[in-house]
This record gives sequence, C-alpha cells and structure tokens, in this order.
Amino acid sequence: MEIASMNNDEKPSNFFTKGLLWFKSSHEKIFAKIVGIAKQLKTIAKDDPRRVIHSLKVGLSLTLVSLFYYFQPLYNSFGVSTMWAIMTVVVVFEFSVGATLGKGLNRGMATLLAGALGVGAHYLASATGKVMEPILLGLFVFLQACALTFIRFFPQVKARYDYGMLIFILTFCLVSISGFRVDEIVDMAHKRISTILMGASVCVIVSIVVCPVWAGEDLHKLVAQNMEKLGKFLEGFGDEIFKSSEDITESKVTKTSLIEYKSVLNSKNTEDTLANFAKWEPGHGQFKYRHPWKQYLKIGGLIRQCACRIDALNAYINSEIKAPEEIREMIKETSMKMSIECGKALKELSKSMRKMNLPISADEHVTNAKNSAKKLNALLKSRINNWEEINLLQVIPLATIASILTDIVNCVEEIGQGVNELASLANFKTTKSCKEIINTNKVMVVEKIELSNNHVVITINEQNMKL
Amino acid sequence: MEIASMNNDEKPSNFFTKGLLWFKSSHEKIFAKIVGIAKQLKTIAKDDPRRVIHSLKVGLSLTLVSLFYYFQPLYNSFGVSTMWAIMTVVVVFEFSVGATLGKGLNRGMATLLAGALGVGAHYLASATGKVMEPILLGLFVFLQACALTFIRFFPQVKARYDYGMLIFILTFCLVSISGFRVDEIVDMAHKRISTILMGASVCVIVSIVVCPVWAGEDLHKLVAQNMEKLGKFLEGFGDEIFKSSEDITESKVTKTSLIEYKSVLNSKNTEDTLANFAKWEPGHGQFKYRHPWKQYLKIGGLIRQCACRIDALNAYINSEIKAPEEIREMIKETSMKMSIECGKALKELSKSMRKMNLPISADEHVTNAKNSAKKLNALLKSRINNWEEINLLQVIPLATIASILTDIVNCVEEIGQGVNELASLANFKTTKSCKEIINTNKVMVVEKIELSNNHVVITINEQNMKL
Repeated sequence: MEIASMNNDEKPSNFFTKGLLWFKSSHEKIFAKIVGIAKQLKTIAKDDPRRVIHSLKVGLSLTLVSLFYYFQPLYNSFGVSTMWAIMTVVVVFEFSVGATLGKGLNRGMATLLAGALGVGAHYLASATGKVMEPILLGLFVFLQACALTFIRFFPQVKARYDYGMLIFILTFCLVSISGFRVDEIVDMAHKRISTILMGASVCVIVSIVVCPVWAGEDLHKLVAQNMEKLGKFLEGFGDEIFKSSEDITESKVTKTSLIEYKSVLNSKNTEDTLANFAKWEPGHGQFKYRHPWKQYLKIGGLIRQCACRIDALNAYINSEIKAPEEIREMIKETSMKMSIECGKALKELSKSMRKMNLPISADEHVTNAKNSAKKLNALLKSRINNWEEINLLQVIPLATIASILTDIVNCVEEIGQGVNELASLANFKTTKSCKEIINTNKVMVVEKIELSNNHVVITINEQNMKL
Repeated sequence: MEIASMNNDEKPSNFFTKGLLWFKSSHEKIFAKIVGIAKQLKTIAKDDPRRVIHSLKVGLSLTLVSLFYYFQPLYNSFGVSTMWAIMTVVVVFEFSVGATLGKGLNRGMATLLAGALGVGAHYLASATGKVMEPILLGLFVFLQACALTFIRFFPQVKARYDYGMLIFILTFCLVSISGFRVDEIVDMAHKRISTILMGASVCVIVSIVVCPVWAGEDLHKLVAQNMEKLGKFLEGFGDEIFKSSEDITESKVTKTSLIEYKSVLNSKNTEDTLANFAKWEPGHGQFKYRHPWKQYLKIGGLIRQCACRIDALNAYINSEIKAPEEIREMIKETSMKMSIECGKALKELSKSMRKMNLPISADEHVTNAKNSAKKLNALLKSRINNWEEINLLQVIPLATIASILTDIVNCVEEIGQGVNELASLANFKTTKSCKEIINTNKVMVVEKIELSNNHVVITINEQNMKL
C-alpha cells in the first residue's frame, strides 16, 4: 500500500519536473535560435548597410502611396484603383535604381500597349454578336498567351523585358475579357494607368533621391574587386608555396586571404544581372548613359578564366616540394617574381579602374612578369648541363607551377588589354603627374584655348627643352 | 534650256528610283530580320520542345480560368474578384512543376496569413478612434514593409520564400488600409482567397497533368550531362594533344566536342535554382519526395572543380610539343591512358546516374587511371638515368599535362565518391547480371517467396557450388 501511494505521490511531481525540464530546454533552444537569427540579421546588415536603407525606402514609399487612401479627395477620384498604386510599389521597388526603372518602364509600357490592344480585341469580339463573342475572346486570350509565353524564352527578351511580357499577358486578359462596355473600360483604364504611374513615380523618385543604389556602380566595383582578389592571391602565393616546412603552421592567418578568389569563379550570374540593370540607368556620377557595360562582362570573363588557372595552381599550395636546393632556389626566384608581378599588375588595374584613371604601371608589371618567364626559360636552358643527377620527378611540381604561372601571365595581359579598351571606351582620365612631364625634358606651349560643345579645348605644342 | 528641262525631267524619276531603291532595300532588310527571328524561334523550339508545350499549357490555363467570366452563375458569385484568378495564373504558372507549386503555395499561404494579420491590424487601429487610426495604420504598414523587405535578404528566405514575402507585404497593405468595415473585408477576403485558390489549382493541375516538366528530373539530367561533357573532353584530349602536326588540320570536327565542357563552368546558378524548385515537388517517377537534391549540388561543385582543371589543361591543346621521341612516347602512353580512363569513368558515372543504377565499372576505370599515374611516376624514376641529354624545357609542357591529369584523376575519384553517396542515399538499383552471378561459383537457393506491400520479396540463400 505504502509503495503504491508513494508511486502515486511521485507521479505528479515527476510530471512537473519533466514538464519544467522540457519547458527549460525548449526555452533555451528557442532562445538560442532567436540569438542565432539576430546574429544573422546583424551580419546581413553589416555586410551591406544599404540593405537596411533599402528596407526603410520600401517602407517610406508604401506609406507615401497609402496616403492616397487617407486623403478623401484622392480616394474619391480613384476609388478602388488606388490598390494598383500599392501593388505597383510592392512589385516594382527593387534594390538598385536600374532594376526599379526597368521594372517600372516594363510595367508602364506593357500596361499601355496591352490595354489598347485589349480594348481593340474586346470591341472586335463584341461586334460579332453574342454567340461568337466568348469564342473569339477565348481564342484571342489563348493565342496571345501562347505567343508571348514562347517569346519569353528568347534570351534577349528574358534578360530585359520578361516582366513586361508578363504584365502584357495579364493586362490583355483582364481588359479584353472584363465584360464591361467600352466606355467603362476607357474610364477604368484611365484610373488604373494613372495610379500605376503614380506608384511607379513614387518608386523611381524615392529610389533615385534617397541614397540611390546604382547597379552600374556595383558592377564596376565588383569587377574591380574580383581583380583585386586574384591580385591578392598571386601576391600571397609566392610566399606560401616556397616557404620551408617550419613556417607552414604560421601561415593559417594568411590562408584565409588566399581562398577569397574562389567567389570569383561563380560571379558570372551576378555580373550579367547587374549589367542588364545598369543598361536601364541614366547617367550618374562618373558613368554616362551609354557607358560600355558590355566591356565589363568581357573583362569579367577573362578574370574568371584567370581564376580557373589560379584554382589549378591552388592545388599545389599544400604539396611539399622536395626539389634540390639549387633548382628550387632558381625556380623560386623567377616564379615568385612572376606571381608577385602579376599580382601587382592586377591590383594596379583594379585600383585604376576604381578611380577611373588610365592604368599606368600595370603594363610595366606585366612586362616584368613576362621577362621573368623568359629568364626562367633561359636559366633552364643554360643550367641544364650543370645538373648531373637531376631527379625529374622532383622537378615536375615546380615545372608545373612555373608553366601555369606563365599561362596566368598571359591571362593577366589579356585582362590588362580589356581594361585598356574599357578606359578608351569610357574616357578614363590620364593622371600624368607633373614630375613625369618634367622628366620628359619637354616644354608644353599652349597654342590656343577654345570653347566647343561645353568642353574647353586646349591645344598644346610639345617642344624639346633646350638646357 | 534643253539641259534644264532634262534635269527637271530627271528629278522626279530620280526621286522615284531612289524611293524604289530605298523601299526595296528596307523591304529586304525587314524581310531578312523576319527570317532571322523565325530562325531563332525554330532554334529555341528545337533546343527544348517542352517550351512549345509550356506555351500551350499557359494558353490553356488562362482560357480555362477566363471561362469564369462567361459562366454567369460563377461570375455573379465572385464578381470583380474573378480578376484574381487570372492574375494568379499569369504570375504563378512557371516552366517546371516545382516552380509552379512553390509560387502557388507561397502565394496561398502568404495571402492567408497576411489577410488575417491585416484584418487584425485594421480592427486594432479602428478601435483607437478617427484621429489615431491613419497614424497607427501608417505605422503598421511602414514597420511590416521594412521588416519583411529586410528579411528578404536572408539567403534561405530569398531562395524559397521570396515571392511569399512579396505577397505578404502586398496583402497586408491592401487589407489593413482598405478602409472597409471588418465584415466587408471578410466577405472580400473570402472571395479573393477562393479565386486565388481556383487559379492556383488550375495552374498546378495543368502543370502536373499535361506533359509535366519536373525540375528535379532536369537537375538530375543536367548533372549527368555535365559529367558526360567532361568525359567526352577527356576521351578526346588524349588523341588531340599527342597527334603529329600533320593531323592537326583534320581535327577541326572533333574540336567542337572539346569545347562543350566550357558550359559546365557556369552551371552553378542553374543547378541551385533547379534544386530549390525540386524541393517543392512531390514524388515523381524514380524520385521520391525527399530525394537527396543537396547531394546533386555537391556533385555539381566537384564537377565544376574538375572542369576548372580541364580548362587549365585546354590551354595546352594547341601548343606544339617538341619533346624527344622516346620521352614523348613514354609520357604519351600513360597520359593518354589516364585521360581516357578518366573519361570512361565519368561517362560510366553519367550513364549509371541517368539509369539510376549503381556505377559498377567506374571505380575500375579510376583505379586504372591511378595505376597509370603511378606507372608514369615509376617510369620517370627508372628511366631518368638513361636520358643523357635531357632538355628540361621540352619536357616541361608534357610534365605539366601529366601533373594536371593526375590532379584530374583525384577530382574524378571524388566525383565517383559523390555519385556513390548519392546512390546509397537514393537507393540506386544494383544491376548484377546473370553472368556475374554464375562467375562467382555460387548457387542461389530460393528459400521463400512472399508478398508484402505490393512488393514480391524473394529470400535467397547463397551456397558454394560443389563442382
């Protein structure tokens, strides 16, 4: 009996402790989850503070547009159509100005065109009588939906007018089927188009006026940054690969900077998207309306090609090189020079691109790297007879590294050419410092100064300085 | 006088001929453009005939939904809300079942949730009196728009719930601001949700029933195809690089198959998108509901890594190799073996993946390739003393190729491991042929046959054959 009663007594307390434990553990779990999410929120905001500003901008635009509901006169004239302004803001407002403008223009143009065609189709169908009308309308809807859905598969259309196609299909269906009389439709279309225009204007204005995010600028920075990442790797690679085994433990800190280049391999999609958005953007800052955005994609492709070589090179970063000291030292010096000069060239190209200056010393670094490659070849040719007991197996990793590096030098040269093309297409500034001009021992004689098309043209005559 | 009149006579005829010529040339230009577009249409349809079917499916769904307008009883009960069914079809219908289901579920859930919250916010605000109501509503709209726009930057949310977030913001704004009485809102919400559900159901049903396009299947095929492309390159590479200069002109035909691998380098984005869509899809064909789609992304990453090495290798395909005949022959044989065995392994892996069989001979090919690599190393070690006048410079390209190939063998081994993991996760079939069973000198004794859950279970007892 006692045992039974004890058991009975224990059960509820057991239940409560279990419950408390469960509550405590789940409470802790939830707390840990919340902390995790909060940390992630912080990282996302820290990575790109413009994201926070973008969120505030969307909130602001929506609140502005929702004012239409509160101002009685506005609401009276537009009625339920005010809804379309809110829809437009929610759907059109994108992170960058280019994306917002592109979507806004697509939406506006598609609504106008499809609306007009829809009214036409509706008018045509209603003229054929009550029996034929639904059949004809159904046929119109079917045909235009099929045709435009198929056209959306065109790569050029998909890249720039996909959203417009969608809105065209939608608007055409809504207008042609609606079943209203033509004058009713015209009134409705007027209201809808006005509200859509209002919504789109609010988006575009807020997007451009409040801390604008330019897709073009992002593309420009991304390409420059990718070049810098490769440059960093190449500068660091020389030290990493030829260091003695004692230093290997120390190098973990620097290694994080050596894997940055991996993100470059998958940057194609971001670049393509940004270039498409950038084409919608008006001139801003240093970028004119028809800035050569295509050239960035070309440079981006070359950079990825170089990153691929670097990825192949990276496979050797952890392999121990056992070559004889003499060969090692010989190859080390020239390879390091090649790697570091390529790195410097890329960093220089990146820096000059960021500042939109003509790259001055990049070509010099490439030439240095090429000379090192030639030197390595010459050394290998001349010293070959001095190595009596050569172990080919031990030389192969070094030879491979040297060979891939030579390939990288060519890649960097091509990137340099790409940047130079961009510089001439986009009229990058020359930054010839005074010192350099003086060093050339020439005297600049200003011949005439004239004003044409908002530019001051200064004609200069160069003469040799008579010392 | 005569000259003048002649000139006068000529002018109109000149004008007409110019006009005719202009008309003819512009006519030809337009005609050429139309022909160009038609050709592009044909290519797009030929590349993937499912695109044509998809267009027809969209047309069909829209026509079906637009029937709501013509059936008076349906139209009478839903009124203008019928519009939402059309909007849903236009916006939700995507190329693959996964994308359609994902968008449909996102739209449905977001509308329900945001609708309920919106009614709550509206009720709360209207309880505070006429002055506070618009301020409070404005605050609600601003806060939720900011918060949700920011949450959209979370990578996990962006990948799967981006559209839902958009619809949440939209619905919350529309419902909370609308200015209707609560009972009106409930009626409106009921109509809107019903029509959205109808639209979404039509999309999902048409998408699944009429020639479904499964994103999961596409991902499966894409990964298998990418493996095959690399396999083709590696099989072709051996012949290409070691052929004598006389054959070079002939090889242009085969070279087109050698650049196919380039598309693999940029496949990450497509794979990620398809995997996200695939997660929404129910079980279909050989794929169960929780098929390990993540594993495909892992294999895809390994394939791209291998493609990167191949890109580095490709740089040597046009370089002339001048190494002495003896070395050349020695390295040629083993390198070709490595390349071809890797190619065979990849093709075998691709084939077994397509058929969802366990890869049998792929490991064998990898082992062969590894053995060749070892053989090459051993050869280099043993023969080294026989080469008296070795020219290191001439050997370097060959050594590099061999070195990169060794690296590729490792990559292929990793891909093989990835596919094996997938095979065990997804229960690929074993295809032990009868011949193999007989070869093992065992006798299979069928112990019992029973029927459970639609499967026939045959229990077999293996005994050594007494010959």
